[in-house]
Amino acid sequence: MTMNVLGYAAPSAKAALAPYQFERRDMRNDDVGIEILYCGICHSDLHEVNNDWDRNSIYPMVPGHEIIGRVVSVGPDVTRFKPGDQVGVGCMVDSCQNCAACKQGLEQYCEKGPTLTYDDKDRYDQMPTYGGYSEKIIVREKFVLRIPEGLDLKGVGPLLCAGITTWSPLRHWRVSEGSNVGVIGLGGLGHMALKLAKALGANVTLFSRSPGKEQDARSLGADNIVISTDGEQMAAVNNKFELIIDTVPYVHDLNPYLPSLSINGTLVLVGLLGNLEPTLNTVPLIMGRKSVAGSAIGGIAETQELLNFCGQHGITADVEVIKIQDVNEAYKRMFKSDVKYRFVIDMASLKS
Amino acid sequence: MTMNVLGYAAPSAKAALAPYQFERRDMRNDDVGIEILYCGICHSDLHEVNNDWDRNSIYPMVPGHEIIGRVVSVGPDVTRFKPGDQVGVGCMVDSCQNCAACKQGLEQYCEKGPTLTYDDKDRYDQMPTYGGYSEKIIVREKFVLRIPEGLDLKGVGPLLCAGITTWSPLRHWRVSEGSNVGVIGLGGLGHMALKLAKALGANVTLFSRSPGKEQDARSLGADNIVISTDGEQMAAVNNKFELIIDTVPYVHDLNPYLPSLSINGTLVLVGLLGNLEPTLNTVPLIMGRKSVAGSAIGGIAETQELLNFCGQHGITADVEVIKIQDVNEAYKRMFKSDVKYRFVIDMASLKS
Repeated sequence: MTMNVLGYAAPSAKAALAPYQFERRDMRNDDVGIEILYCGICHSDLHEVNNDWDRNSIYPMVPGHEIIGRVVSVGPDVTRFKPGDQVGVGCMVDSCQNCAACKQGLEQYCEKGPTLTYDDKDRYDQMPTYGGYSEKIIVREKFVLRIPEGLDLKGVGPLLCAGITTWSPLRHWRVSEGSNVGVIGLGGLGHMALKLAKALGANVTLFSRSPGKEQDARSLGADNIVISTDGEQMAAVNNKFELIIDTVPYVHDLNPYLPSLSINGTLVLVGLLGNLEPTLNTVPLIMGRKSVAGSAIGGIAETQELLNFCGQHGITADVEVIKIQDVNEAYKRMFKSDVKYRFVIDMASLKS
Repeated sequence: MTMNVLGYAAPSAKAALAPYQFERRDMRNDDVGIEILYCGICHSDLHEVNNDWDRNSIYPMVPGHEIIGRVVSVGPDVTRFKPGDQVGVGCMVDSCQNCAACKQGLEQYCEKGPTLTYDDKDRYDQMPTYGGYSEKIIVREKFVLRIPEGLDLKGVGPLLCAGITTWSPLRHWRVSEGSNVGVIGLGGLGHMALKLAKALGANVTLFSRSPGKEQDARSLGADNIVISTDGEQMAAVNNKFELIIDTVPYVHDLNPYLPSLSINGTLVLVGLLGNLEPTLNTVPLIMGRKSVAGSAIGGIAETQELLNFCGQHGITADVEVIKIQDVNEAYKRMFKSDVKYRFVIDMASLKS
């Protein structure tokens, strides 16, 4: 049994998104049926649609993994949700649940690979997964997040990808009151990193190439801005940061940032997939027990922790809400970084 | 006031070492005077003599920073040592004692730079520092280590450099009973890493390019040997190691080792100073929250901790004892890795 759903899909690689009618599986016993209210547009949606990462993408592709909705139905084994609940779905909808990573609640690192919310295949019936640019989605209960009351739902979707991607390293590297945290790049991820690090009590510095971002950075939570091309400003933050979150998604030189890590400090890459060019010089790493690390989204438990934290602190992403009919235009603007700081699709527009 | 001391020195870069009579400072109030019994030969002695690291080396240069000796005199402010005590001096003889690193007991990362045991300048009188290939040395009490009773002193010197260089990351990354630890390279550092990791209760694997090292590696403490050029053997240790200590001092590709790190695992470089060639690919880092880090020797407190641990566990380095007159020949053999696993100079030979 399947159900017929309307969404927007890319019919082939690099093609514009267009309305698409498709089949979702019917509910399993541990599934939650969700009516989608909002879906954020992640930079990776564009990469996936374009097949930039060469992942044998499946078309037509319905993107979207920053999903906010309302429960409309639950399978008989579902215990934590009921119709009417506000829920979210992020980048994953399943994982093996058995490997060392899954057992630690780090499903994003599932040794067999998590099932991605779209452009993947269901672990049981091998049906393609379709994302949040659509009316409804069916998701295994374990991968459904509870959205706390009191947040403006429009800005919550991006917490499920941009938010958790920066939250997970902040928590893993134990950022707390008084920690010195650097953030490289001010986009969807960077703006969340500023807000979350600040809310954790850290002293937060934005590294930016453009002086023009100072005002915005400060209003998002940055205590300081360092222009990364200014040698004097960089020297002034020598040995400062316990953690630097590097959100830049394109090739860039990490070496200038390493001296600004404190002893035992870590620069964590969350946006750059590929070869480091130019290559790293190891001397600053060895001469200060510094690390270069990577981190991907976050586990389900820590995503729920983030949502609860955001509920307590009133944190949402800064978003620009669009109609689904404007998604291709939004992709073009996102490609030019012309958004503060995340597009979110109001899914009610799908019916218009 | 100074004192006249006999040693062996390199008169200029790349020159052979020869007998050399030189001045050491007289005792300050917090100094310990040490008669040197043994001094290990570290691979870096060769690099320093050759000025390979382009550090504006000072010649004549008396190398040696794995020093074991006996206290012969103490300044009036010295409280922890008395004549007759067995002591050691490692890579550092002083540091600023005031920066964040020094205050954490991590003098090796002193923000103003520690004073190195040789090829450096004293912080107070600017006299060149001269190392352990000599009769006597004068060292500030804080940088003098106590050697536990019961160890064969011949094998203790290398603990002060090769030993602490591997001990520090083992402790920092909390290796304990049941941890999975990989070690890359079986030289002076590698053989200490195997012994120490094993004594900490870890399950220890040596990565090696040569199958011929299996027997030795097992007798030193390795539970397993993985031939790093064998794809099948490498695949069998996928996701296994919480910590890999990479002791290889020359350029080599780190990428093949990253998949063998566990989630949250760290590969720590302790031997390779310079650019990573080929460059790192970030995907395995991001897809498993893995780190590439560096680490340099260790602080004074953790060096004492190591010595105490070695005293309790009866651990020393495997050494080949030579006369000082054979030091140039030893350098040639060390350059070819023809030593198991460290040369140590019996300083009594200086008098013959």
